[in-house]
Amino acid sequence: MVLETKTLEEKARGLLGERGVSIVDIADLVMYLQKQYLPDLTLEECVDSVDSVLTKREVHNAILTGIQLDILAEEDKLLQPLQEIVAEDEGLYGIDEVLALSIVNVYGSIGFTNYGYIDKVKPGILEKLNDHDGPRVHTFLDDIVGAIAASAASRLAHQYPDRAHEITQ
Amino acid sequence: MVLETKTLEEKARGLLGERGVSIVDIADLVMYLQKQYLPDLTLEECVDSVDSVLTKREVHNAILTGIQLDILAEEDKLLQPLQEIVAEDEGLYGIDEVLALSIVNVYGSIGFTNYGYIDKVKPGILEKLNDHDGPRVHTFLDDIVGAIAASAASRLAHQYPDRAHEITQ
Amino acid sequence: MVLETKTLEEKARGLLGERGVSIVDIADLVMYLQKQYLPDLTLEECVDSVDSVLTKREVHNAILTGIQLDILAEEDKLLQPLQEIVAEDEGLYGIDEVLALSIVNVYGSIGFTNYGYIDKVKPGILEKLNDHDGPRVHTFLDDIVGAIAASAASRLAHQYPDRAHEITQ
Amino acid sequence: MVLETKTLEEKARGLLGERGVSIVDIADLVMYLQKQYLPDLTLEECVDSVDSVLTKREVHNAILTGIQLDILAEEDKLLQPLQEIVAEDEGLYGIDEVLALSIVNVYGSIGFTNYGYIDKVKPGILEKLNDHDGPRVHTFLDDIVGAIAASAASRLAHQYPDRAHEITQ
Repeated sequence: MVLETKTLEEKARGLLGERGVSIVDIADLVMYLQKQYLPDLTLEECVDSVDSVLTKREVHNAILTGIQLDILAEEDKLLQPLQEIVAEDEGLYGIDEVLALSIVNVYGSIGFTNYGYIDKVKPGILEKLNDHDGPRVHTFLDDIVGAIAASAASRLAHQYPDRAHEITQ
Repeated sequence: MVLETKTLEEKARGLLGERGVSIVDIADLVMYLQKQYLPDLTLEECVDSVDSVLTKREVHNAILTGIQLDILAEEDKLLQPLQEIVAEDEGLYGIDEVLALSIVNVYGSIGFTNYGYIDKVKPGILEKLNDHDGPRVHTFLDDIVGAIAASAASRLAHQYPDRAHEITQ
Repeated sequence: MVLETKTLEEKARGLLGERGVSIVDIADLVMYLQKQYLPDLTLEECVDSVDSVLTKREVHNAILTGIQLDILAEEDKLLQPLQEIVAEDEGLYGIDEVLALSIVNVYGSIGFTNYGYIDKVKPGILEKLNDHDGPRVHTFLDDIVGAIAASAASRLAHQYPDRAHEITQ
Repeated sequence: MVLETKTLEEKARGLLGERGVSIVDIADLVMYLQKQYLPDLTLEECVDSVDSVLTKREVHNAILTGIQLDILAEEDKLLQPLQEIVAEDEGLYGIDEVLALSIVNVYGSIGFTNYGYIDKVKPGILEKLNDHDGPRVHTFLDDIVGAIAASAASRLAHQYPDRAHEITQ
């Protein structure tokens, strides 16, 4: 049996919300990435682009898997040494980036740059997710959210092809 | 704190063994892939190549993460619908292939073909791992084992460059 | 200025035809991959799936770039040692697989296995393209054609989710 | 026949130099990425790390192929519409990012973030390469140089594991 895409999307959206990430939080990241290239861009258009990315099955699967690992690390239920690696967001781990890339790839390679940039600068919700002080673990979630925002920006580049050069570089 | 690579390697090798995969099982897959191109190839050389792949940190991280998800699915401890997706090795999931690809990438893109081929034909240990009848879940492990074998074959292609064309195609 | 996707598609389709690859040739590969899992599958459905893959901009860009390099190698116009590497389809090159993967990625990671399998077994048109005896160079084209077929098979897996397990594994 | 890795490295280094990129230019990018995390880092260490990345065959192949396409675009020798796409560094092209990613992958996925960041901020040599005013075409080269720098930074992260978290995020 294979689940319906619609069911997966509801679960993926539900998990994002439970982990403290709203669609508007992600749309704000898209706006942050694009406002200088598309001065007339509205938050509503950014929300629409994020919504469209969130219809893709590859994106659902990455969200479900990544947030699951974050939650298990929070509950101290992973085997060692994976428990420590995920809980501490260890810098040589890389599986979080691998999952993020599977999201970015769906809209083609032009999203890599935006993903890397936003993951480094960490504006908006990404800064909150990356605060390692509390009991929460967001090792996978911050990369996933950055990847969804970068993918939504790639979609806008396809919609505004005359501005695509600035949007993707 | 970052774990030593040696510690990670011991844990990754231990998990492979606990899940029923020996180094010789993987070396047999390398031999299966290469014997027609390298008639003098010995099982010992295949074992050496697998051992070398198993020194890489990216490989350890993929093994630890993938087997962890298999074990949790076996214990019915994943959230729905991820539990069902991993337990049933659902065909549209794809995160298992994503992790496998992170292994293959370490030895360059020439390993993709061998990975895809062996994952489809499923010789030797891969056939056993892919038997979905028992209580065991090997959704990630079979892709990971195939990826390690494909990577070890890529290494041999680099060692026998005059035969590389046949090895990689 | 950014070219219209429609213009790119016409050029990409034109180049495939000029290099001796028809849509039916690629559809035959899709049928080869799927007939055992989808016994009622018609060639027309395979053609439709290939047509759909050929609407994607990432696919056009990979086709244009790969065939361009094949043609330049045929005309002996690449710089050494790239000329020799592409003309001889050197086994450690790997950039042909990298381009192919950019196609497969558009339909998610579930297509990797089919790509690797078909690229190794080389049925139908792939056998002809991979015949290195004549003056023609198809170093990139055979990987690209295999990737389009694997992507079209992934699309079918999404259309027949109940059979997706067999289709992708 | 397969070329020796040493021969390929000489050719790849030669092409970088001819296109106006020195090893120190790339080492400066590594320093730019890492100085805040590794205050004692010397330029010599950065040069060593770049040198090490430049021993990898996957890196040579990406350099030879990408610079070849840049040169052909400069000489107006590519087929349309690829000529226009590469000459104008069209924003929806993406094959330049695909080649860059094949470099970054060799050192694992932890380099993605640094690649995306540096490709967007464009410090040092990247700013010069990305100046589209002159007759020169560097559509591929700027991504390749950024990818080499990001890979060299990943290598440093492996050498200074205690600082890896900062280096890769």
